[in-house]
Amino acid sequence: MASDSAGFALSSRARRTQRQPISYLMAQAVENPDVISLAAGLVDADTLPAREAFALLEPMLCTRPSARAALQYGTTQGLLSLREKVLAHMAALDGLAPGDLAGTPDDVVIATGSQQLLFILADVLIDPGDVVITGWPSYFVFTGTLEAAGAHVRCVDIDEDGLVPESLERVLGTLKAEGLLPRVRMLYTVSYHQNPTGITLAEDRRGTIVDIIRRYSTDHRILIVEDAAYRELTFEGRPPRSMVRHDPEGRHVALLQTFSKTFAPGLKVGYGLLPHGLVEPVLLQKGNHDFGSANLCQHLVLAAMESGAYARHVEALCRHYTAKRDATLEALREHLGCLAGVRWTHPSGGLYVFLTLPEGLATHTGGPLFARALEEGVLYVPGEYCYPPDPTRTIPENTIRLCYGVCSIEQIRAGVAALARAVRAVM
Amino acid sequence: MASDSAGFALSSRARRTQRQPISYLMAQAVENPDVISLAAGLVDADTLPAREAFALLEPMLCTRPSARAALQYGTTQGLLSLREKVLAHMAALDGLAPGDLAGTPDDVVIATGSQQLLFILADVLIDPGDVVITGWPSYFVFTGTLEAAGAHVRCVDIDEDGLVPESLERVLGTLKAEGLLPRVRMLYTVSYHQNPTGITLAEDRRGTIVDIIRRYSTDHRILIVEDAAYRELTFEGRPPRSMVRHDPEGRHVALLQTFSKTFAPGLKVGYGLLPHGLVEPVLLQKGNHDFGSANLCQHLVLAAMESGAYARHVEALCRHYTAKRDATLEALREHLGCLAGVRWTHPSGGLYVFLTLPEGLATHTGGPLFARALEEGVLYVPGEYCYPPDPTRTIPENTIRLCYGVCSIEQIRAGVAALARAVRAVM
Repeated sequence: MASDSAGFALSSRARRTQRQPISYLMAQAVENPDVISLAAGLVDADTLPAREAFALLEPMLCTRPSARAALQYGTTQGLLSLREKVLAHMAALDGLAPGDLAGTPDDVVIATGSQQLLFILADVLIDPGDVVITGWPSYFVFTGTLEAAGAHVRCVDIDEDGLVPESLERVLGTLKAEGLLPRVRMLYTVSYHQNPTGITLAEDRRGTIVDIIRRYSTDHRILIVEDAAYRELTFEGRPPRSMVRHDPEGRHVALLQTFSKTFAPGLKVGYGLLPHGLVEPVLLQKGNHDFGSANLCQHLVLAAMESGAYARHVEALCRHYTAKRDATLEALREHLGCLAGVRWTHPSGGLYVFLTLPEGLATHTGGPLFARALEEGVLYVPGEYCYPPDPTRTIPENTIRLCYGVCSIEQIRAGVAALARAVRAVM
Repeated sequence: MASDSAGFALSSRARRTQRQPISYLMAQAVENPDVISLAAGLVDADTLPAREAFALLEPMLCTRPSARAALQYGTTQGLLSLREKVLAHMAALDGLAPGDLAGTPDDVVIATGSQQLLFILADVLIDPGDVVITGWPSYFVFTGTLEAAGAHVRCVDIDEDGLVPESLERVLGTLKAEGLLPRVRMLYTVSYHQNPTGITLAEDRRGTIVDIIRRYSTDHRILIVEDAAYRELTFEGRPPRSMVRHDPEGRHVALLQTFSKTFAPGLKVGYGLLPHGLVEPVLLQKGNHDFGSANLCQHLVLAAMESGAYARHVEALCRHYTAKRDATLEALREHLGCLAGVRWTHPSGGLYVFLTLPEGLATHTGGPLFARALEEGVLYVPGEYCYPPDPTRTIPENTIRLCYGVCSIEQIRAGVAALARAVRAVM
């Protein structure tokens, strides 16, 4: 909660809103500039498409009609030609033509990053006391958003193939038995190379999960929010098709993607394909938020897609991050491979590896491991931040999220080695 | 309210959120492309700084460190150097050095337009049933935001010098007598060249109004939101200093400004100087909204300020809009000057003139005047949209908001002539 409102009477939402735990880590990074941060979930600054952006802006700003379009107000929903383009893009990633999707460009909303869409979806569906189901663990920024909305969070097990359908069925069955089914509003899942685990929801589970949600939507429709932020950062194999493929009438799944991971976070352009009935409620809220995200940035990502610069950039990014993922896994094997009780995930894409240490080895910021790791010169995210406050579960204290996004390969090697020294020292 | 949620259970906020009335007018404009729109509250596309923006982006994107900074994630609060710059700018507009203000760059928040700050301020202060005081009339987009938040709106008279202090005192006295003083959260005022009237709050009323709010802040601090979106578009005379000048300890006034009117709406960069105690609650919400507005746009407006391009642009804009304001007033005089019972405001800046027709002459979209005006080839905003739903007042039916922002001088003349023909025809 805000610690000092200095005499203002804050709303119940403001009083419910906690400081994001990550802010402590960001402060640590600033105060310890020489420390290698395997904590920051950022993209690699070396990959930012500066030349590409400039080459695209030149014809845009030096031609009168396109300059006017980019610098004038846009619409709340976002640039129509960009909505058409990203819809075709989502369809292509699913191996479809745009017309094969249930949604049309009218069902696409452009936002200030996909986070704004996450916020608004929570805001239009959740009253205090409503229930949201997430993975165990889940993306912690959105957990904070859900708590601020007053949601009660219940969690579903994740194994190496992602959300476990039997666990989802169990959670929904329990909620039904508790009389809480009418309060269940949303299943939230980061379905590709999840933040924090790097795990992808397997193709053969996707239809099952949509079916379960459909089956429990007796009182009203439960929304599946498929956060596909890392979908395009797939390093090997063909990523599964989206859950939209299992929702052919476009009734249950909101598919969210973003240009922040695949092009440039500084443009803050995200987008979502929404079930038709949610478009108007979302736009009414977005109208009150900002009546449209920055138009220049929308025109820039559209130009990047149209010119082919976007596709080339994603390809280069995947090569770049593959080498980093490999370096991370190799360093973990080298430095922690022979330690009993230590294991980690093997992501096929994205930016994260999730590490489990022997039981009893606490990773929180107040504990000896965190302090020792800082001394050794490395910063990590305690995995406990990633477990939502599900009252039916106990948060494991021995996990760590590592992000290989920002660091160079040399830093990754040195950082993992430093972490291993810290683990051995406190074990 | 959202008309078709198609089986989703919407939150109470979503159910409270109305479609903005302006969307009907925007649809009319699209369906009648030959009609002159004196309705759209946009800036003139001819004035958009395309060459300037390109000239600023070239060194930014072609230099490695600055390109990285502009394309990477920023912070939730916004770029520090931009916060320093806009603080100095706000101070200079008040004839002060930055150090003379109570606030520091830590009290400045950069947002996706000032609308996002308006939304968040409402969100951190207002629970359903709380009271907000606005002018009568007021900026209708924010009225919609307040209604979605569940606020009860009470209104204060506006005369040619802006909010009438005696009316504010009366409204607060009544609220106190009704036992509602503990629920009063905010006074909202567009204090320069108000949307919709063009009226500026006079210098000698500003201290009085701050004093009244301070005096009634017995239960908690009531916030004054000074929306100064049109402050820099002053065509003649020295605009009054902000209400921050009358709040030397920075306890009551949030001063909001934007680059949308003075540079380019497509960048969607707004900012606010907040009372210290509200910064953290606002940032906690903004962290959940988007953890920071588009960074590229922040870097671009900073470069515009640093290079002097911004100041030059504002100067040129003022000359440009002065001619349009003059054309509007001249055309009104010519075509409506001799009609008894017709009067209008004489703005010294901004984009709006507010017209009052004889009593009984209804301007709403379902009435004969609106239809006839469309036939004659002109679109306006019925003034009734601009009056919040204060249950103690009756909305006048005979007012019109005219915006001279978008149209050329020829269109302004033709549009006002068409409006006059319509008025005469239905009188």
